[in-house]
Amino acid sequence: MASIQKKIIFLIQCEDRKGILAATATWFYSRSYNILHCQQHTDNNEGRYFMRIELDMKDLQTTRKELEDDFSLFAEEYKLQWKCRYSDYKSRVAIMVSKTSHCLYDLIARNNEGDLNCEISLIISNHPDLELIANQFRIPFYYLPITPETKQSQEEKVRSLLTRFDIDLVVLARYMQILSSDFTRAWQGKIINIHHGFLPAFQGANPYLKAYQRGVKMIGATAHYASEDLDQGPIIEQDVVRVNHELTPNGLRDVGKDVERRVLARAVQAHLESRIIIWKNRTIVFDVEG
Amino acid sequence: MASIQKKIIFLIQCEDRKGILAATATWFYSRSYNILHCQQHTDNNEGRYFMRIELDMKDLQTTRKELEDDFSLFAEEYKLQWKCRYSDYKSRVAIMVSKTSHCLYDLIARNNEGDLNCEISLIISNHPDLELIANQFRIPFYYLPITPETKQSQEEKVRSLLTRFDIDLVVLARYMQILSSDFTRAWQGKIINIHHGFLPAFQGANPYLKAYQRGVKMIGATAHYASEDLDQGPIIEQDVVRVNHELTPNGLRDVGKDVERRVLARAVQAHLESRIIIWKNRTIVFDVEG
Amino acid sequence: MASIQKKIIFLIQCEDRKGILAATATWFYSRSYNILHCQQHTDNNEGRYFMRIELDMKDLQTTRKELEDDFSLFAEEYKLQWKCRYSDYKSRVAIMVSKTSHCLYDLIARNNEGDLNCEISLIISNHPDLELIANQFRIPFYYLPITPETKQSQEEKVRSLLTRFDIDLVVLARYMQILSSDFTRAWQGKIINIHHGFLPAFQGANPYLKAYQRGVKMIGATAHYASEDLDQGPIIEQDVVRVNHELTPNGLRDVGKDVERRVLARAVQAHLESRIIIWKNRTIVFDVEG
Amino acid sequence: MASIQKKIIFLIQCEDRKGILAATATWFYSRSYNILHCQQHTDNNEGRYFMRIELDMKDLQTTRKELEDDFSLFAEEYKLQWKCRYSDYKSRVAIMVSKTSHCLYDLIARNNEGDLNCEISLIISNHPDLELIANQFRIPFYYLPITPETKQSQEEKVRSLLTRFDIDLVVLARYMQILSSDFTRAWQGKIINIHHGFLPAFQGANPYLKAYQRGVKMIGATAHYASEDLDQGPIIEQDVVRVNHELTPNGLRDVGKDVERRVLARAVQAHLESRIIIWKNRTIVFDVEG
Repeated sequence: MASIQKKIIFLIQCEDRKGILAATATWFYSRSYNILHCQQHTDNNEGRYFMRIELDMKDLQTTRKELEDDFSLFAEEYKLQWKCRYSDYKSRVAIMVSKTSHCLYDLIARNNEGDLNCEISLIISNHPDLELIANQFRIPFYYLPITPETKQSQEEKVRSLLTRFDIDLVVLARYMQILSSDFTRAWQGKIINIHHGFLPAFQGANPYLKAYQRGVKMIGATAHYASEDLDQGPIIEQDVVRVNHELTPNGLRDVGKDVERRVLARAVQAHLESRIIIWKNRTIVFDVEG
Repeated sequence: MASIQKKIIFLIQCEDRKGILAATATWFYSRSYNILHCQQHTDNNEGRYFMRIELDMKDLQTTRKELEDDFSLFAEEYKLQWKCRYSDYKSRVAIMVSKTSHCLYDLIARNNEGDLNCEISLIISNHPDLELIANQFRIPFYYLPITPETKQSQEEKVRSLLTRFDIDLVVLARYMQILSSDFTRAWQGKIINIHHGFLPAFQGANPYLKAYQRGVKMIGATAHYASEDLDQGPIIEQDVVRVNHELTPNGLRDVGKDVERRVLARAVQAHLESRIIIWKNRTIVFDVEG
Repeated sequence: MASIQKKIIFLIQCEDRKGILAATATWFYSRSYNILHCQQHTDNNEGRYFMRIELDMKDLQTTRKELEDDFSLFAEEYKLQWKCRYSDYKSRVAIMVSKTSHCLYDLIARNNEGDLNCEISLIISNHPDLELIANQFRIPFYYLPITPETKQSQEEKVRSLLTRFDIDLVVLARYMQILSSDFTRAWQGKIINIHHGFLPAFQGANPYLKAYQRGVKMIGATAHYASEDLDQGPIIEQDVVRVNHELTPNGLRDVGKDVERRVLARAVQAHLESRIIIWKNRTIVFDVEG
Repeated sequence: MASIQKKIIFLIQCEDRKGILAATATWFYSRSYNILHCQQHTDNNEGRYFMRIELDMKDLQTTRKELEDDFSLFAEEYKLQWKCRYSDYKSRVAIMVSKTSHCLYDLIARNNEGDLNCEISLIISNHPDLELIANQFRIPFYYLPITPETKQSQEEKVRSLLTRFDIDLVVLARYMQILSSDFTRAWQGKIINIHHGFLPAFQGANPYLKAYQRGVKMIGATAHYASEDLDQGPIIEQDVVRVNHELTPNGLRDVGKDVERRVLARAVQAHLESRIIIWKNRTIVFDVEG
């Protein structure tokens, strides 16, 4: 959709201090940038300041490199941590799956409809079941099975594929394997997982069975960045659905698929639209706009 | 999934009267049927009684025809309106679309995952845009364009396709054309439409623009049976999502797609699982179980 | 509101078996009772059958005692566990609080508006702070402080008050003390607690701080029957509210008050309307109607 | 709660233009104010810019009058519309009711718990029914009945009471009378009404009956500023609750009370916390924080 306004997005965080907003806004204004949108958050407990700025790309009078070099001088002075993204760049995404297809279908369909600004570059699975779907959509599919003996070598193959395909974001769309600490550390803030439970409740395996046994009246799903500790990474998005006594563990699983789908999709979309800042084990997720 | 219990489902309605539950339950018991599940509703305003009964199909000792003939004698005596369905029958569904793909993708994906007990037998559109998707999933696609002059003849072609493909249910998955009264009358209770507004608010065209202009804080979608009067048929399912001042009419439309998808899917699923009884302009939708 | 239809309500559970619905419905029909409403649930995993029946009280041609004696013969034959309630009886409720008033205010206000069919007979607290509210509404207030030494004797005083006031239901409306096993066993199924967290997440103290630290995107509340094991009793009702990074632990607490209020109120209402059956550690909560 | 940080809040709107954020942030910074919180919104359709700024009151080195005079020079230069509020000021609120008490109780209880930063200065009703509640909480109560002949003179009495009590905000907490255009014009942006329907659906009288007849699957409530046109003013807050076929119009009304309560409370709270800007017939409602 060529008509859509192109944007430069800055994600900034720093220690909170007087004048940071004035300085930043003035910096952009003095270089003739129109701030289309500015979102901020101050965590007074932590004394931490967070900011997301959208600029109109048509105000860009230099190369991207020059803008970034220029800004990095300012950032150094004010001790800012920052990232800069351009909305005309399509992130390259790898989806990892096992046997369940609902999240995979959903992400592909949303991307085809133009709702996710990305290219789904490859699908990796430890099972062959979903190759058919990959073929339907002409997405490269890699079947990399796992046995206790091959776990490490399989992961090496995965990581080398991610490098080869120049991947920006990995989405674990119901990938039922645990990644090594090495992997999650190297890809920190770049792997999104969907957990089929309302974390921190029902960590680990079989959350729907646990939910049934505990007799909960709502079930949920949680999308989070993968971290070394299973199901402990920074939460991006959660949602729930009301259930009642009529549902068996299988019934809960069926009902839960819908929540998993939309929670994962929202988290991936927020990441791809550069609306997330991670701080310690929490996320600032700025509101969608437009 | 051959292991799933096969069921016979009776949907019954009648004038409310003492003893109707006892008589019905006894009728099935005396023929050695185990009632797996029984849901009822009495509308005391209307003096109307509604019932959904699930029997275990392995208790069926006669032909289906014999069961139905036998029950019809009982039904006559008690003046019951009724339908009988067998869970091993896959309903044949036609999906009608225009240019927007999100509901179509969603229904196909859910059916492929086994969440809808149906066969999507054909896709009909007044635009050629979505043929690619039909091809991807090897579903017959019929492009039947409409001009003011051809509106009637196009509808005749549609209806003849529905007959030829032996269709049980038509789903208007964002089909942006109005059906004739003749059509909706002939297919009463067999056409489900998704309206991208929270009916009865925002009837007619451009509901997201109207929602923006009115400054609402939630937007919604409504699935209903098509009737002669546009957007006036019996409502099956509704849902909403919270929005804020950040969203333009286009933003509302994007956010609304998710609600449309799941509202339509839930309505279609309820219909296919024989959980809906229509009475006047209202629906009784029995809870999902299992 | 004298005009409201009076009802007799039976709550029944038993091992599932063929013909139980026919037998029960026929039993009432043969005694000329009109079944106003019948709700059922079969737990196929557990092989357990649950039923709630509403009869029109004007069909009662015997004393209540005679009805119950008569039914108990039938129940014995079919091995039913059952309870019988009459909607013209106002349950006597004791509310226990500490210092926080929002749930107390809410329950009193709802009862004054006629939304809970009960009499709030007394308020007990381990702090004097809320006596003013009790006085405003002319409800007896007992201040029974607790020290580590007096914990047991305080509880004895509480229990003797409950007996003296002929209490049917105890509501822990943010009572920040743990009851003894003796107490919860003796009052099993008759004490409802509100936990300010989405159980089983955030058990124990300070759930809002824990929720903040974990960075969850929704917070919730859980109403459950008190049991020996803290925060482990059968869940009656849960709800959540969406939160974001703007909220500190105190902000979460403020936002959470609204969820606590309505979750507790709904649970108490379901109990008072005899819509709950407990089975093992789960509840069947039949839908509200009317 | 004396320990809570005192704040100065600016609500600003103007035509959108480059540099407005830089200029405003710099203005406050140059006068040594710490911006605790800054929220913005740009409506690109309308070319309109909206801003809410929270300053730390302990940075105030002048009188309030001096600050406002100083800022008004800046505002004139940049053509800003603005308001300035101080969080240590308790707004004076009048509540108008008819016979229904649930919203009244709820607002009083929330205020007593410290959740609304206001003083409920008086209650006005066209019926005597709720005087008891006013007395319980020692709030002045004025019974001003209405007949077709006295409608105008009654309204004059109401308006003179609002003046006499120096009222900042009028809350119509289920006041079942229509105010004159004169009144709503004079009090524009200062009267909040709760409508017991999901506007724009079910305008006018008896929304629950209409909702029943239309067979909707969710009912809602809408809080909005009163305007000349009935039920047409700027919407502040909406919410819904899922309902099913079991509920009669009276049942819907009972279920709806809960939504009315919390929608009205959230709207009043947003107004009292100076989080709302009105523009044409829409509201910008900035997120709660803290």
